[in-house]
Amino acid sequence: MPLSIISYDSAGVSTKTMDSAKELVSWKNPGEVTWICVDLLENSDDIINIAEVFGIHPLTVEDILDHSQRPKIEEFDNYLFITLKAINRNTESYFHPINLIIMKDTVLTFQESPSISFEGIKKRILNNAGRIRRMGSDYLAYAVMDAVVDEYFYMVDLLGSEIEDFEDRALDEKDNVFIRDIQTFKQKLLKMRKAVWPLRESISFLKHLDSNLISAELEPFLMDLHDHIIQAAETVETHRELIAGIMEINLSVSSQRLNKVMKILTVISTIFMPLMFIGGIYGMNFENMPELGYRYSYFIVLGVMALIAIGMVVAFKIRKWI
Amino acid sequence: MPLSIISYDSAGVSTKTMDSAKELVSWKNPGEVTWICVDLLENSDDIINIAEVFGIHPLTVEDILDHSQRPKIEEFDNYLFITLKAINRNTESYFHPINLIIMKDTVLTFQESPSISFEGIKKRILNNAGRIRRMGSDYLAYAVMDAVVDEYFYMVDLLGSEIEDFEDRALDEKDNVFIRDIQTFKQKLLKMRKAVWPLRESISFLKHLDSNLISAELEPFLMDLHDHIIQAAETVETHRELIAGIMEINLSVSSQRLNKVMKILTVISTIFMPLMFIGGIYGMNFENMPELGYRYSYFIVLGVMALIAIGMVVAFKIRKWI
Amino acid sequence: MPLSIISYDSAGVSTKTMDSAKELVSWKNPGEVTWICVDLLENSDDIINIAEVFGIHPLTVEDILDHSQRPKIEEFDNYLFITLKAINRNTESYFHPINLIIMKDTVLTFQESPSISFEGIKKRILNNAGRIRRMGSDYLAYAVMDAVVDEYFYMVDLLGSEIEDFEDRALDEKDNVFIRDIQTFKQKLLKMRKAVWPLRESISFLKHLDSNLISAELEPFLMDLHDHIIQAAETVETHRELIAGIMEINLSVSSQRLNKVMKILTVISTIFMPLMFIGGIYGMNFENMPELGYRYSYFIVLGVMALIAIGMVVAFKIRKWI
Amino acid sequence: MPLSIISYDSAGVSTKTMDSAKELVSWKNPGEVTWICVDLLENSDDIINIAEVFGIHPLTVEDILDHSQRPKIEEFDNYLFITLKAINRNTESYFHPINLIIMKDTVLTFQESPSISFEGIKKRILNNAGRIRRMGSDYLAYAVMDAVVDEYFYMVDLLGSEIEDFEDRALDEKDNVFIRDIQTFKQKLLKMRKAVWPLRESISFLKHLDSNLISAELEPFLMDLHDHIIQAAETVETHRELIAGIMEINLSVSSQRLNKVMKILTVISTIFMPLMFIGGIYGMNFENMPELGYRYSYFIVLGVMALIAIGMVVAFKIRKWI
Amino acid sequence: MPLSIISYDSAGVSTKTMDSAKELVSWKNPGEVTWICVDLLENSDDIINIAEVFGIHPLTVEDILDHSQRPKIEEFDNYLFITLKAINRNTESYFHPINLIIMKDTVLTFQESPSISFEGIKKRILNNAGRIRRMGSDYLAYAVMDAVVDEYFYMVDLLGSEIEDFEDRALDEKDNVFIRDIQTFKQKLLKMRKAVWPLRESISFLKHLDSNLISAELEPFLMDLHDHIIQAAETVETHRELIAGIMEINLSVSSQRLNKVMKILTVISTIFMPLMFIGGIYGMNFENMPELGYRYSYFIVLGVMALIAIGMVVAFKIRKWI
Repeated sequence: MPLSIISYDSAGVSTKTMDSAKELVSWKNPGEVTWICVDLLENSDDIINIAEVFGIHPLTVEDILDHSQRPKIEEFDNYLFITLKAINRNTESYFHPINLIIMKDTVLTFQESPSISFEGIKKRILNNAGRIRRMGSDYLAYAVMDAVVDEYFYMVDLLGSEIEDFEDRALDEKDNVFIRDIQTFKQKLLKMRKAVWPLRESISFLKHLDSNLISAELEPFLMDLHDHIIQAAETVETHRELIAGIMEINLSVSSQRLNKVMKILTVISTIFMPLMFIGGIYGMNFENMPELGYRYSYFIVLGVMALIAIGMVVAFKIRKWI
Repeated sequence: MPLSIISYDSAGVSTKTMDSAKELVSWKNPGEVTWICVDLLENSDDIINIAEVFGIHPLTVEDILDHSQRPKIEEFDNYLFITLKAINRNTESYFHPINLIIMKDTVLTFQESPSISFEGIKKRILNNAGRIRRMGSDYLAYAVMDAVVDEYFYMVDLLGSEIEDFEDRALDEKDNVFIRDIQTFKQKLLKMRKAVWPLRESISFLKHLDSNLISAELEPFLMDLHDHIIQAAETVETHRELIAGIMEINLSVSSQRLNKVMKILTVISTIFMPLMFIGGIYGMNFENMPELGYRYSYFIVLGVMALIAIGMVVAFKIRKWI
Repeated sequence: MPLSIISYDSAGVSTKTMDSAKELVSWKNPGEVTWICVDLLENSDDIINIAEVFGIHPLTVEDILDHSQRPKIEEFDNYLFITLKAINRNTESYFHPINLIIMKDTVLTFQESPSISFEGIKKRILNNAGRIRRMGSDYLAYAVMDAVVDEYFYMVDLLGSEIEDFEDRALDEKDNVFIRDIQTFKQKLLKMRKAVWPLRESISFLKHLDSNLISAELEPFLMDLHDHIIQAAETVETHRELIAGIMEINLSVSSQRLNKVMKILTVISTIFMPLMFIGGIYGMNFENMPELGYRYSYFIVLGVMALIAIGMVVAFKIRKWI
Repeated sequence: MPLSIISYDSAGVSTKTMDSAKELVSWKNPGEVTWICVDLLENSDDIINIAEVFGIHPLTVEDILDHSQRPKIEEFDNYLFITLKAINRNTESYFHPINLIIMKDTVLTFQESPSISFEGIKKRILNNAGRIRRMGSDYLAYAVMDAVVDEYFYMVDLLGSEIEDFEDRALDEKDNVFIRDIQTFKQKLLKMRKAVWPLRESISFLKHLDSNLISAELEPFLMDLHDHIIQAAETVETHRELIAGIMEINLSVSSQRLNKVMKILTVISTIFMPLMFIGGIYGMNFENMPELGYRYSYFIVLGVMALIAIGMVVAFKIRKWI
Repeated sequence: MPLSIISYDSAGVSTKTMDSAKELVSWKNPGEVTWICVDLLENSDDIINIAEVFGIHPLTVEDILDHSQRPKIEEFDNYLFITLKAINRNTESYFHPINLIIMKDTVLTFQESPSISFEGIKKRILNNAGRIRRMGSDYLAYAVMDAVVDEYFYMVDLLGSEIEDFEDRALDEKDNVFIRDIQTFKQKLLKMRKAVWPLRESISFLKHLDSNLISAELEPFLMDLHDHIIQAAETVETHRELIAGIMEINLSVSSQRLNKVMKILTVISTIFMPLMFIGGIYGMNFENMPELGYRYSYFIVLGVMALIAIGMVVAFKIRKWI
């Protein structure tokens, strides 16, 4: 099923699948909106045919075939070309590119694998749900972009709940796992950002575009979409700030922990070193050490040691070290 | 009391509450300003009715029902749609959305719960206080936004006094509570910021808007409002800088504390280790250790130990370690 | 002396003080520039009168009475309203607001206390010094702003010399006083900034303003004033960078100090622990310890200890630790 | 082979090499695109001749001869002058400048050494591959810039794989080599950035340029090129963020390591110091120490020591230190 | 030699020095470009005369006499006024202000001391070198600015070689000298920046200026100058980044050094404390300690000690601490 085609107007819908782009030529119904959904993995050879049929510029073809394209929008004489990065929930952290060509009455989408997010739109067309059947090809393109942006919110919420986990862990974790997880998370945010920000620009461009491919009726929808993508972008930025704050907390907690460890070491050393010194003195073997012979000197020394120890402990208590 | 309606001109006021939006149609008095105050929690079903009566775009309805909307302004053919985040003092850190639709002679407000901040405006209308009864629907909308921004200052001042607390604590606190409080505070600031900054843009947009919904007479009031929101935004930024400075102080103080602890440990070790070493020498059991037999050698050794200790202390005093 | 009034043209000057704003009405001499200097502390009630006489918008009156206003400029139909923060040298770190209303032939200034910086301008008017008597009300307003900006430089220089003090202290200070002083200084800078930056915008606005209240002749003076305020703003930014650098130095010095302390501790421990260990061995009471009976073993052990100590010291010397 | 010249139209190609620029004058074929490829190392004297022949401004000549020029674009009356920094793979980290002059029907390129990246373009011209033979001089210039930008991606990918190495090393490395490698890498990124960013501006300038030297047909190609250079620039920025994150990890890991070391030291000291103290007490030589004479006191003391040691270990286990 | 004057056209040159500005009036040759070079130190009184002769605004005079002016450009009715900060190589880190007034056919320069950088321009005029004699007063002003910018590169290169020194020192230096040198260097960069950035704006302003004082012919030269100043500004920014990186390295190296020191301390303590403990046990004086009487127990204990020490060393080797 390399090419899946849906053609509709407010009156009816017809769907078709073709094996090759060659059959496309004689097919178009005037007055209907046609959505041609191309699966890139199987059709990479047919794309040149499709390009010829619809008058698509060779550079656009190159962009469609290059999967590392950053999201962008380009205006050509007869069409608008939009690249976005959609999220595939099944492979969670994976962004796969969707290419969108908007023409008068026709929308072409190119993607690596049959995307789940398209199913919802197809259903709305087939069931005549909402306004989609009453609107033109520009609304269809909007619906595709809207579905992609909706998935961003799913992803952004997922990242948000990961941040809450990190917040709980920041006060306890002291090994490399935490820091490695943070790094992985930051890379996810970076990827997210590289998908969201350029799309924001593209939608802003679309909003201000003066083209007969985009009807005036679409304006509030683009405004709304623009709003959503800004919200996604801002949430990503907030995530970045929060994760930086968590790193800061972890660092601060780790430095407090060091302080505590050092205090214990110092307390122990400061208490026992003088005591050991006194013990050492009376362990010396000089012949003439008068204290050694006195009856109670051992107990006196023990008492002095106890006093020193207690004094130290009190001093540390006062300084609030222990 | 799902719908509360106030209708007024400079001559008089009438108030009404309706159970359902259906009664709205036949009600409007020409020449008067009408404020329709909708409580979202109870009326979410009626909103479609209201939208139909006033010709409100379905996307606006969606935005009104979505409580996580970021503040924004959108211009439609027949109305202006403004979303703001108001502060509910009773639940202090909680921002609840207020939706504002400005039409010729009519203002609609939609919110989750009956907001306290509206009471003041209602009183001013009923008592004919200030200029509100002499002005149009645009002034009413301004009054609503002004009340929201005034609440921001209350919040900002609250945060400011929290910062003073942090400043006092920064020099003493050494446990995780401080760092966790700082983090909580930063999240509050972040929330505040996400409410204030987009509203700033909205008001700026309103100021430069060329629409017959906004009369020229309103301009100084918008200028003033713009000024207030900028002041709120700047104070939030100042808070951010101050809190960063406080974190810096806390870190610096903690590093100084570590330095002090390590110095004590070093002083103790440096004084007692050589003494213990000497004690250890004369604790050895060699048969031929001439010093052991001399009469005063014990006292000489004690003297030497005292000299070493005093010398160390003096050396540390000179280096200003103790 | 609630209201002090100076009226002048190139021919002459007359001064007057009034107890109440009511007498103002019949007073104005056409063709002369009139400066009405209002002391807010005593006159807060009269301001409504004044506003009525001169046709000042109620919002401007509110702004004048609100002492926490941020610096700004607002254009009204019949006047320009400028708020600035002037420095009162007597209370050094204190900024007090000056409100300036520029009308055709009239300038009104409102301030909390009789400001010293106005004395210079009054003298120049009375003594016909410089060009002030030959120029209009716009030049008078410029003169007021110029006097305020001149005071900024005084303040900025004061802060600059404080920075030099900090630079000297950064290498030595190790207690909380330093860090607290730095924090206080940063708050001063922040205040300074909040006074300077908005004024910069105001003057820039004034420079580009197309109003008949500002004559073409004033342009070079505004350019000059703009230049000064930029210089003040840039110096404040430089101060911020320098103080950040000083914090960095202090941190770095403190970490070097810790390194040094730890080295001493390590050197002492590394030298004495092996020696004490050897001493401990020959302090054991086993019956069969052949070394104990040999004639020179004590001296040999002492020699070995000396060798170990010297070897350690040499090793540390080579590593440049001591 | 100081000057290599290729002249072509869609019909045919001719190539030529000249020893000196003087022969250039009489050579030009009208209607053909001529590419004059000048090798700077050998021809620095001839450039003045070339400049005279083609009417090139003396300042452009100066720029061509100055190898430290930053990338830029300048529009002159009769030509566009573009400087770029190309990557020479053979000397990996080395950027060498390419100067490009675009005229009607003629492109001049000046560079230090015969660049490999030009070979591909020359082949495409000779083999009539792609559209190059059908397009004008502006497309040729585009092809040169495109080849340079393609090399950037090679470099950027190389840097990216270096980052992956650093990521693996960040958790283990603790000596200066790592930190020195990071520094070297950052300098490479900085160089890369200084090549990419100005070129981005140049291409953006070219895109918006209204000149008869650039045909409308080139627009999609410039759009595409612009897109590529933005992608390169963004990847460099991402690299910068990643490397900063790696530094942060390394710092954090190093601080964790210190914490661990200190804990071991504290554990050892806290366990053994009390034990050594007890040993020291019963090593004293007082005559009257009743415990010494009891039969089992040695074993009791050993038992007490064991209990203390076990108690300490348990306490540390509970605190999760060991 | 207070005033030095050079008057030239493509035909000839005449030079003159005057003691006072009064003689200036009757002197001007129509059609020639006149450069009036005023030495501020000696002529501060004459400047008012000069200002009167050439119709210079009193504010410009004030600016010329104020040596702390930041670089700027101001357009007056009859002249352009440019202030720059030139570098005096003899006093290396010293920027002295040069004031430039560009009029139709006349350029006035005001500076504190006879500047070396002017000698080159004077020579080019006297020797008719380059195009200077064929161009107008605008080119002369360009030549002055170009000479100043060329000196910036000298300074920037000097700073660059200092950075290389710092790079070498960053891995070794551990005392305050390094950190103090870095701070001094940063202040130099800051000064450099405060000279370069405003000049960049001034030249950009000049480039876009639509004034009859600047001929179209000058445009490529201004473009070139703009390019140079951008390059200087960018190099200063690069220096800032590099120096920040060096600070980072130094900090990181210092933390690694601390780690190493602490490891040594821990290794020593961990090896010797258990050994000393064992020694302490058999140094106790209990009467009933069976081990003491066995024949080989001393050697067994020594062996156990050796085993413990070896075990520890092996454990540390495995952990790669030594």
